Amino acid sequence: MNGRTEGRGVRKRAVVRREEIVSIAADIFATKGYNGASLRDIAERAGMTKAALYYHFPDKEQIFGAVVMTRMEALNAAVTEATTAAGDDPLARILAFFDAAAGRIDEDPMGWIASSNTFWTLERLQSQPAVIEARDAFEAVLRQALRDGRDQGLVAEEDIGLLGRMLISCLDVIPRWMKRDGPLNARQIMRRYLRFALAGVLTETGRAQLDDPAGDDAR
Amino acid sequence: MNGRTEGRGVRKRAVVRREEIVSIAADIFATKGYNGASLRDIAERAGMTKAALYYHFPDKEQIFGAVVMTRMEALNAAVTEATTAAGDDPLARILAFFDAAAGRIDEDPMGWIASSNTFWTLERLQSQPAVIEARDAFEAVLRQALRDGRDQGLVAEEDIGLLGRMLISCLDVIPRWMKRDGPLNARQIMRRYLRFALAGVLTETGRAQLDDPAGDDAR
Repeated sequence: MNGRTEGRGVRKRAVVRREEIVSIAADIFATKGYNGASLRDIAERAGMTKAALYYHFPDKEQIFGAVVMTRMEALNAAVTEATTAAGDDPLARILAFFDAAAGRIDEDPMGWIASSNTFWTLERLQSQPAVIEARDAFEAVLRQALRDGRDQGLVAEEDIGLLGRMLISCLDVIPRWMKRDGPLNARQIMRRYLRFALAGVLTETGRAQLDDPAGDDAR
Repeated sequence: MNGRTEGRGVRKRAVVRREEIVSIAADIFATKGYNGASLRDIAERAGMTKAALYYHFPDKEQIFGAVVMTRMEALNAAVTEATTAAGDDPLARILAFFDAAAGRIDEDPMGWIASSNTFWTLERLQSQPAVIEARDAFEAVLRQALRDGRDQGLVAEEDIGLLGRMLISCLDVIPRWMKRDGPLNARQIMRRYLRFALAGVLTETGRAQLDDPAGDDAR
């Protein structure tokens, strides 16, 4: 448990143990919230003493930081790889971005909930610049594809920031309501959502009615 | 403080006091989460003793229930009134529904966050049938308008449940990221979102590309 005993084997086991702890912690943070989760809960579920847990993480803030950062790094790696593989076509990149991101929800819904909670607890948001940077990098991948789509005459909307925000909002809350045993997984749900938002859901008649001045008055 | 002293004046003051407590509690639940909020915080911010707080609410669960139920009742009343006033036209009713709902976010963002958290803390969800019922009633108002839109040939999408879920998802997270001093309020943001999702954001070229088989392969 001290520096001198950390041979290669011990260090490797420590990394694995750390990952297990982070995964258990993600689960507990997602169901109980940051304030409701305790080091005791995490240690108990990990089958270790609190002292052993302290060896890996000195406090709850550090475990939470590890949960969020590992999830965000995995997410950013997934969307970057997927959009790069999709090539130059902006629409293919937009679809690939959400396929990869929703795929992360399907693989790890509790980790997603735990890390998206970060943005929703106002106090915490201020104090984690690395988290904000990672989130900005994630959103930037989408915005670039949307902007290229606009520049190539595929996307008609000028406000790429707001459009990106809407699409990510839909994505973000999927794990909070989808039934784990429901007919659609997150990837399938997000594909449907994307089609709604990109192509619209109105018929020609509905579209004309939305655009006519009487419709504008009604709004 | 007991039944015999509750004259008309005292009872009226008690109602006002109760509303103040619920409003203060909404703020605290929204920033600290359910588990992080304490009766002590609420009593302190309300400028009362814990004993005085107990007079109104015997435990935290009861205050939280009051926060959620008062917000949901106000929301349901607002969307029902707005959609009724919008008349028979389904698109006008859909727009009115979101105008009224987003208006509630503008009036009381902390109350919105506190009550939408209910649906996101999985344990709590099971135990509050009245909350679930109120939420179902809220969603039903929208689904009826969407269904009428479909039946009248205005909405092309068959899966009204999924479409309604997407629109409500966008709405739900608005108070979590909008800057209180940003250029758009919740009502304006939601109008833009609705236009994206109803009319779509692609140009004719983009739309054709989304529908062509190569595009399908890319997905």
